[in-house]
Amino acid sequence: MGARFKARIGANENVFGTSPKALSAMLEASLESWQYADPESHDLRCALAEKHQVGFENVVVGEGIDGLLGYLVRMLVEPGTTVVTSSGAYPTFNYHVHGYGGRLVCVPYVADKECAELLVRTANREGAAIVYLANPDNPMGTYSSAKSIMKELDRLSEDCVMVVDEAYVECAPADAAMTVDIDRPNLIVMRTFSKAYGMAGARVGYAMGSSELVGAFEKVRNHFGMSRPGQAAALAALQDEEHLVQVVRQITESKERIRGIAENLHMDSIPSAANFVAIDCQRGEDYAREVLNALARRGIFVRMPMVWPQSRCIRVSAGTQADLDLLERHLPHALDEAYRIRYRR
Amino acid sequence: MGARFKARIGANENVFGTSPKALSAMLEASLESWQYADPESHDLRCALAEKHQVGFENVVVGEGIDGLLGYLVRMLVEPGTTVVTSSGAYPTFNYHVHGYGGRLVCVPYVADKECAELLVRTANREGAAIVYLANPDNPMGTYSSAKSIMKELDRLSEDCVMVVDEAYVECAPADAAMTVDIDRPNLIVMRTFSKAYGMAGARVGYAMGSSELVGAFEKVRNHFGMSRPGQAAALAALQDEEHLVQVVRQITESKERIRGIAENLHMDSIPSAANFVAIDCQRGEDYAREVLNALARRGIFVRMPMVWPQSRCIRVSAGTQADLDLLERHLPHALDEAYRIRYRR
Repeated sequence: MGARFKARIGANENVFGTSPKALSAMLEASLESWQYADPESHDLRCALAEKHQVGFENVVVGEGIDGLLGYLVRMLVEPGTTVVTSSGAYPTFNYHVHGYGGRLVCVPYVADKECAELLVRTANREGAAIVYLANPDNPMGTYSSAKSIMKELDRLSEDCVMVVDEAYVECAPADAAMTVDIDRPNLIVMRTFSKAYGMAGARVGYAMGSSELVGAFEKVRNHFGMSRPGQAAALAALQDEEHLVQVVRQITESKERIRGIAENLHMDSIPSAANFVAIDCQRGEDYAREVLNALARRGIFVRMPMVWPQSRCIRVSAGTQADLDLLERHLPHALDEAYRIRYRR
Repeated sequence: MGARFKARIGANENVFGTSPKALSAMLEASLESWQYADPESHDLRCALAEKHQVGFENVVVGEGIDGLLGYLVRMLVEPGTTVVTSSGAYPTFNYHVHGYGGRLVCVPYVADKECAELLVRTANREGAAIVYLANPDNPMGTYSSAKSIMKELDRLSEDCVMVVDEAYVECAPADAAMTVDIDRPNLIVMRTFSKAYGMAGARVGYAMGSSELVGAFEKVRNHFGMSRPGQAAALAALQDEEHLVQVVRQITESKERIRGIAENLHMDSIPSAANFVAIDCQRGEDYAREVLNALARRGIFVRMPMVWPQSRCIRVSAGTQADLDLLERHLPHALDEAYRIRYRR
């Protein structure tokens, strides 16, 4: 539209920013960026292994979860291989599956939630090679306890790898995060520095699992894919637990305010364990899209789920007070506008 | 060995550093790295398109040439597909070909040079899908004129894509650089900010070619693979032609000094169009490896070609005066040591 957004609350970024310690490390590493980064990400992997109480060989670092999902799919999917996910869950995972010729079987959300039980049952029935589960989920923000997922994993065929995408887990209640069990050859857990750590632009994700599965990434990954500033910043961010705690508090407050803004307009929103809130616009997908477009015309960038029935919602990322002031001011007008366009034309 | 190298002149990095303008942009972008980078690399691609007088749709940006080579191989190689390269040329390209199950046919260097004529003849004979040529070459630093490569391209089957890896071309004589011909569907030229631009740790490479071939990368690439600091730095680096010219002058002087150091020890070196010099140790591969190891024990990091007969050489990257002072001081001792180990034990 030829204009910059005034409020960028659509990409689930962390507007509360990167840890100052991570930033400082990033700046320092920038000055050394004439040198390649360590292709093994040795120091970062050591720190991650310590944090998660696993071995160095159980951690692989990559260019965001997107990159790691691509490598995983490459390793396990060939034309015709079946993969199971939820309809409307992370599209980039589906992109990789389609890219390698896999057969994607989608199960519906159950009560706006990715349903581990249904996913596993379907994976077993279809003879899937991978079953994908984001916990917390994007775009709805719902979550399951790690314990309930582990229970389903016990029922999953050993020939099928469960990938648990924990991109948002730092924002979630403590019972959400999986304990990485390196003795399970068919579990891989992925995390990122893009969300709660506020480093989306630095491209650092990691995956954890058995040494056999994680070790296999060495055969396909881009060994020099990591940037030096990204590696350094991630390492420093891990050492700034205080910043993380404070950011998560800010995210929680911001989510409460978003829910309040919706409530004042008599709209429901879905309780979120992530860094965004799905607001139920209650009038179908086309109406939700008009709300989104009307907000965009007013300089507010939000997104929406792409698959019905989740697509009755708009998805608003946690924002600053200023961002949410704009949302509060413009959302009523956007709703009016969308209503006029949809129903009075 | 539990110690840091005193001279890091083995990875063909640019010790003369990044453009201050690029650094400044990188620092600024670091502060905004809570945001994702632009998945289209719009501004950077526009600038690259302008520089090379091609269209926006003829340029794809990726996580270094390594990443782009991986995508290219993925698109064109399936199990059994034939690919032609030179024996001892860039191993990461071979890694990708093996990774996708391709059949790699290697032709020898001719007079320490990748031979376009032999490569093309072999590609035609073997029905190859890709023929790889680095110009200038790594690890020997030799080069061919773009004109002579174009002549061979004219003879190449249209079913085979020629990839010209110009990682080092900014250091080479002006007649080395290919003019990108977007009307040729089977030519792709790759460049990087890792070498002359001094941004190895930022992971920015790009490829240019017909809109059909370049557009196909959209179907397989990691759309959020680029870092925000890397994108910003690359864009700024393009606007600092002066720094590039000055760095290339320093590289040239450094290469001359390396050749002089070798000459004083009665060793030949190969005239280099890249940012390193291959020094001929004249006594076979095992001896060259002992020289390399002896230098390493003295805190000097260099590398060597991996395939005979190029492996008679060690490869020394352009270094600072201090780096080369160390090389000058230690190389005679390293040669003595290697000689003793090889011939007097």
